[in-house]
Amino acid sequence: MAGLAVWATLACNVASLAYFLCSYVDGRRRRRRGCVARSGADDDGALRRPEDEEGEAPDHTVAPALAPDAVLNLELGDPTMYEAFWREVGARAATVIRGWQAMSYFSDAAALCWFLEPELEREVRRLHRVVGNAVVDGYHLVVGTGATQLYQAAMYALSSPACGDQPVPVVSPAPYYSSYPPQTDLQLSGLYRWAGDANTFAGDECIELVCSPNNPDGAVREAVTSGKPIHDLVYYWPQYTPITGRAAHDIMLFTVSKITGHAGTRLGWALVKDHDVARKMVYFVDRSTIGVSKDSQLRATKILGVVSDAYETPPAGDGSATMPRLFDFARRRMEERWRTLRATVAASRAFSLPEETAGYCSFNKRTVTACPAFAWLRCEKKGVEDCAEFLAGHKIVTRGGEQFGGDAQCVRINMLDRDQVFDMLVQRLSSITDRAD
Amino acid sequence: MAGLAVWATLACNVASLAYFLCSYVDGRRRRRRGCVARSGADDDGALRRPEDEEGEAPDHTVAPALAPDAVLNLELGDPTMYEAFWREVGARAATVIRGWQAMSYFSDAAALCWFLEPELEREVRRLHRVVGNAVVDGYHLVVGTGATQLYQAAMYALSSPACGDQPVPVVSPAPYYSSYPPQTDLQLSGLYRWAGDANTFAGDECIELVCSPNNPDGAVREAVTSGKPIHDLVYYWPQYTPITGRAAHDIMLFTVSKITGHAGTRLGWALVKDHDVARKMVYFVDRSTIGVSKDSQLRATKILGVVSDAYETPPAGDGSATMPRLFDFARRRMEERWRTLRATVAASRAFSLPEETAGYCSFNKRTVTACPAFAWLRCEKKGVEDCAEFLAGHKIVTRGGEQFGGDAQCVRINMLDRDQVFDMLVQRLSSITDRAD
Repeated sequence: MAGLAVWATLACNVASLAYFLCSYVDGRRRRRRGCVARSGADDDGALRRPEDEEGEAPDHTVAPALAPDAVLNLELGDPTMYEAFWREVGARAATVIRGWQAMSYFSDAAALCWFLEPELEREVRRLHRVVGNAVVDGYHLVVGTGATQLYQAAMYALSSPACGDQPVPVVSPAPYYSSYPPQTDLQLSGLYRWAGDANTFAGDECIELVCSPNNPDGAVREAVTSGKPIHDLVYYWPQYTPITGRAAHDIMLFTVSKITGHAGTRLGWALVKDHDVARKMVYFVDRSTIGVSKDSQLRATKILGVVSDAYETPPAGDGSATMPRLFDFARRRMEERWRTLRATVAASRAFSLPEETAGYCSFNKRTVTACPAFAWLRCEKKGVEDCAEFLAGHKIVTRGGEQFGGDAQCVRINMLDRDQVFDMLVQRLSSITDRAD
Repeated sequence: MAGLAVWATLACNVASLAYFLCSYVDGRRRRRRGCVARSGADDDGALRRPEDEEGEAPDHTVAPALAPDAVLNLELGDPTMYEAFWREVGARAATVIRGWQAMSYFSDAAALCWFLEPELEREVRRLHRVVGNAVVDGYHLVVGTGATQLYQAAMYALSSPACGDQPVPVVSPAPYYSSYPPQTDLQLSGLYRWAGDANTFAGDECIELVCSPNNPDGAVREAVTSGKPIHDLVYYWPQYTPITGRAAHDIMLFTVSKITGHAGTRLGWALVKDHDVARKMVYFVDRSTIGVSKDSQLRATKILGVVSDAYETPPAGDGSATMPRLFDFARRRMEERWRTLRATVAASRAFSLPEETAGYCSFNKRTVTACPAFAWLRCEKKGVEDCAEFLAGHKIVTRGGEQFGGDAQCVRINMLDRDQVFDMLVQRLSSITDRAD
């Protein structure tokens, strides 16, 4: 009997061992595959990790290594520098949208901006409080498909209904953002029309686009006419410029693109003092695109929330890693890049940049240098009259100064591209000297 | 000794049993919580199920019960009927966007439509092949922030550069979509201008908006002028109308809003034959909003993929549940609603509807009735000249016929709202008879 019991117990042990082995192998396989349902009944409830998605979209953000003779396209303002930050943040910044979520046209039918998601409004107002770069209390918030749509909405609001036969002139002090003229005149509107450099405008009334810090040259700007101003403050964030006060203009535009680098999300907002102006801007966005993508709003809500959390949440105190801080990351990168660029330009003597400026920043709580999102580079090389053409010959694609109402000896260069692109830019510029070639 | 060994073995078995029990209980708890990291090292990689998200956004889609005297707002075309379908689909249709994904302005810089995500293009073309409602081969695809942005892009493409002083007239056969006039004339464009009913247009050249099935009355339409047509086919899907052939017009517009109910995603597309027209439409979307939200495109890719999968993927054959089929769901709902509405209207004698039509549908492979997304209801009640006003008195908000270039005795009523709203509509209509009140 005892012998039988011993054999029976041995059989149990062998069976147990087999079970352990199977569990171990299966568990390893599951961990490699990530979150997979433990049973058939769970399949519907489980969300697999993005890396495990079958047929998952290829990750376009992993750029291949640059060939030494690659063409560097720095003409546009694609902010891919920020990708490295968001990879570091990791899964915390993932946005999950359930199939039945955010289907309606409406976010809050009773609100002035009925297509604005309330959670996004909360995060936007919170971010401005955290950074201290704009007054939010007493302001209406209008969301748009980028600041691009909103400045058009603002021009519409300030020029309608039409008074008289002539469209209202729209001006901006040169050098101005190169997209202002073609965007303003896209439809040859009877309400407003591009009228060039605000510095030389001699008319009675106008709409003035004030971009500060300015695109392309990073200068801190104020209105120069007595016209109705639209303040384009998309670069008024601490990585680019000292925060010297909470802006409180009538219409202030911002975009996620230049804060966090999520240009593809197409999400901007306007802080608007006047209720009637805000109402007309909402009407414009309604008639143009019946509101703004809810998916973009959910994404921006998550992304901006992660940004603010890092500055508002005290460290855990248990030794666990603190959350990466966006503005710290970006300022470090920008300062390093501008130091390198200025040294390179000074050594080559073939180029020049605007004077470096600095100021006390209430967010960073120290004096910081201005680090614009674009370099406004002037070619000092004898005989070169068209800087864009000259640099294109060195496989550096830039935007020529004339498109900004400036002169052809200046170009605008994107300072927000990936590290390897910036490094190669600096390498190429340093090989260009003020000798005759 | 043997006795000791037996006791020792027994102790091992008891310990093993205890381990099994713990694992079982723990596994059950994990399955209830969904995908949770198996180890601390996995924490950053794990994505929690939406229900587990701390501070998760409130679910606006769970509408509170309707009060018996609630105002029924059926003026707009909010397609909330589809929510029930997507709840049934469950987690399969969730979209996950990682923090570093889709940040760039660019999807494919070398493509004609450089802001179009390649995976979305694939799903759009696949869906048209599955349904058979449009030719895709040989057509360019342009994505937009809803079909709303794309018809404006198309008008721009067909009227620029400006020829002469006068804008090109834009017409549509009445009753036409009430948003066409205010959207067309939003900016008083010098390129194109709304010119009313195509049936009475006497000019030489024009742009004609052909909506088929039509908004508001569901009629199948063809162009009535010799102008340049833009075909608005947003309702040409099998839940609304028989699919009688693959449409092959020069410019064809579609939107996710009316296929799947994801109106908040703001995602439409145009199939365009002519390369130059497509190029100009791309330019319009570029200048208006610098492309289209990548988040919307990722969402639409997932949603449309789920729709097509259900029709292309053969059943598993193992008894597991088949994927819910969108067009089947929607057709069932629409047929039921239209049957109910027609019966109610017939019984009340205070109203009338357009004649019911039917036809062979190549997708459903049988004859089906037309079930338009809106009911074009005429008030036959003596003494009532303004149907919208009359119904408002019964707390049913509709859009009056004059806004469609029709007459005030007609109204347009949304047929895509939630079940409880439709049920209450029918209840209220059945209480209105052709007796003097």
